[in-house]
Amino acid sequence: MMKNAIVAQSGGPTTAINASLAGVIKGCLESHEIDVLYGALNGVEGLMDERLVNLTDIFDHNEDDLNVLKLTPAMYLGSCRRKLKDVDQDSSEYDIIINIFRKYHIHYFFYIGGNDSMDTVGKMSRYVKEHQMDVKVIGIPKTIDNDLVVTDHTPGFGSAARYVAASVLEMAHDTYIYNTKSVLIAEIMGRDAGWLTAASVLARNSYSRAPHLIYLPEHPFSKEQFIEDIKAQFKQREHVVIAVSEGLRDGDGHYISAETAAVDAFGHATLSGTGKCLEGLVAEKFGCKVRSVEINVLQRCAAHMASATDIEESWQLGLKGVALALEGKSGEMSIVCRISDEPYQVIYDGADVQQIANAEKKIPTAWINEAGNDVTEEMVRYLRPLIHGSVAVPEQDSMPHYLFLGEAL
Amino acid sequence: MMKNAIVAQSGGPTTAINASLAGVIKGCLESHEIDVLYGALNGVEGLMDERLVNLTDIFDHNEDDLNVLKLTPAMYLGSCRRKLKDVDQDSSEYDIIINIFRKYHIHYFFYIGGNDSMDTVGKMSRYVKEHQMDVKVIGIPKTIDNDLVVTDHTPGFGSAARYVAASVLEMAHDTYIYNTKSVLIAEIMGRDAGWLTAASVLARNSYSRAPHLIYLPEHPFSKEQFIEDIKAQFKQREHVVIAVSEGLRDGDGHYISAETAAVDAFGHATLSGTGKCLEGLVAEKFGCKVRSVEINVLQRCAAHMASATDIEESWQLGLKGVALALEGKSGEMSIVCRISDEPYQVIYDGADVQQIANAEKKIPTAWINEAGNDVTEEMVRYLRPLIHGSVAVPEQDSMPHYLFLGEAL
Repeated sequence: MMKNAIVAQSGGPTTAINASLAGVIKGCLESHEIDVLYGALNGVEGLMDERLVNLTDIFDHNEDDLNVLKLTPAMYLGSCRRKLKDVDQDSSEYDIIINIFRKYHIHYFFYIGGNDSMDTVGKMSRYVKEHQMDVKVIGIPKTIDNDLVVTDHTPGFGSAARYVAASVLEMAHDTYIYNTKSVLIAEIMGRDAGWLTAASVLARNSYSRAPHLIYLPEHPFSKEQFIEDIKAQFKQREHVVIAVSEGLRDGDGHYISAETAAVDAFGHATLSGTGKCLEGLVAEKFGCKVRSVEINVLQRCAAHMASATDIEESWQLGLKGVALALEGKSGEMSIVCRISDEPYQVIYDGADVQQIANAEKKIPTAWINEAGNDVTEEMVRYLRPLIHGSVAVPEQDSMPHYLFLGEAL
Repeated sequence: MMKNAIVAQSGGPTTAINASLAGVIKGCLESHEIDVLYGALNGVEGLMDERLVNLTDIFDHNEDDLNVLKLTPAMYLGSCRRKLKDVDQDSSEYDIIINIFRKYHIHYFFYIGGNDSMDTVGKMSRYVKEHQMDVKVIGIPKTIDNDLVVTDHTPGFGSAARYVAASVLEMAHDTYIYNTKSVLIAEIMGRDAGWLTAASVLARNSYSRAPHLIYLPEHPFSKEQFIEDIKAQFKQREHVVIAVSEGLRDGDGHYISAETAAVDAFGHATLSGTGKCLEGLVAEKFGCKVRSVEINVLQRCAAHMASATDIEESWQLGLKGVALALEGKSGEMSIVCRISDEPYQVIYDGADVQQIANAEKKIPTAWINEAGNDVTEEMVRYLRPLIHGSVAVPEQDSMPHYLFLGEAL
């Protein structure tokens, strides 16, 4: 009897999520127990709509494309932001999916995503079990936010961290050139968890201490203290580079960015970012040159700055997901466990998604300095190995050239 | 008698301006006619303040640092934004400078910069000539804007173009993943000349036609036409990626960005960018997912994406500047002349700065399509060779590690 598998990708993009997909593909191609691996387009949405591609056909004996896939940013199979309904309230989505599973002889379902996707993995694994179906449902993590619990860190985070830190260093060079006081504010993604903002600390080297101040959503933000911090910096240096999380909140939990809601000429309320808001504050209090830069989506898709460690681990977590399924596990997510910082060593394992779905890993208080404007050495030790190594991005006409599915867009 | 030289850098940063500085250093070190090369910090400001460093001491027999300097973004010597006064009105600045020239036995002055710096080169060269001083004053071009006349293109432009195009391609990957209509607007530098925005066209490849629309400051911008253009795109595709210059103006010459001036909670008028303004317009007219990304300063300092062609040419233009001075030329700028597109061939020459200072090279009308929403094949042929080749950026701890002058900042 045929035993087939389906893989899908979900949530926001990272530069490493296709490396995990490549790992799943490789694991399935090498397994004698899996006949065909299908890819569902746009996550569970495409799964329910029966929009499937035959990945075995595409990648069997096609090592070249598999290697390009590993380095391709965002989702090769497309994504969605759909969370399955609670089965007690409405089981119709689950029934559609198990009918697809039956139709295509699916015995393994791999879902690559963040918290919400792990929620889907948990729900689906329980549903198929309750219906006595022989389908193993496995989650494979991804998120630039690094906010999944149990796993030491998440695929995609290391590459985003490397891009953010390199960008902050290069912007520091840009900032240092004038002989006049200046403030540069880099706004970094991470609404609730400050891991990626913290990673800007890796920009520091022997000649540049930028970012000189780091503000994280885990610590209540005070505008008064912010001004005092900059004043103190100006006593030591002319140029102050500041990394801020998009999700900074004051002591009452209100987003700092919400303060500058304004109405534009079209009558829209425009919510300017945290960086823009603080730029206005610095201009008012110091009257000096100030610029805010929202690093924006490039931090999650700039595959040309991917971390080789991140790409390799993401690939391994894909392979591990297949291994877990073949061992008969279901409702688990593949995780990375750190054995040591120096030399950096990890092993791969599986963990119950119930522990992971809908939970969120924030930065430990001990890794933030007392003043709440920097991170500690423990944080640096944790982060450093994750950005290790660069990748050689495939190029055509001196431009990155990645793998793409379907008609040209 | 000692014959010394001074070099300085001015204007806004690029990733290639230090390659030209390295070329000047190399040219001076190899010349038997120049004893010591000084670097003035922060352009003519540091020159007047006598803030000088001995570059001969730093770089003689130090090929390693010279190679790192070639790949270091922004100004190793710092910069300024000072334009010398008209000598007829006030010659005091010129007198300060020629006193420094006399004190340090300066016979050669090299100034690396854009239009304003070439204005300084012209004024200084006339002043020293009128005072019968044996000082050759030579300009070396730089600007990401590519808006200098006479030279085929400017150092720094090719690297910025490569970063912009690669970023637009990677953001296109990020945009394509959801199965729902979306618009992404990339705002690119170039207030009056659209060269860098035009360079986003190089993001197009066999699988992605992004940017699907390109709007340049050389063509009057109409919001009505913009909406019609997007409607037409939505008939062909779900995701529309748009490149816009920060300097778009309507038929009356008013900046599009000026329309969204709003007042924030601190009471500041905030001038949101062109991208943000158009984002609001798209949200209003289409109600679809829309995001604007201001690529910001990274396009001028992301040395990790530098064009090898740009770095090599910038270095050659530095060498050529020294050669021109040694030939006895003064009041000239080193230029690059294109011999052919395919194979790409250039020669280096000198041209009178009078032709260049305060002039501006805009995109020829023939290189913009009739609808004013794209560029032509001629533009692509012009741009393609300028981004050719990548560089191996020096790294430490997997971060770029550049050359830096002075105490750690």
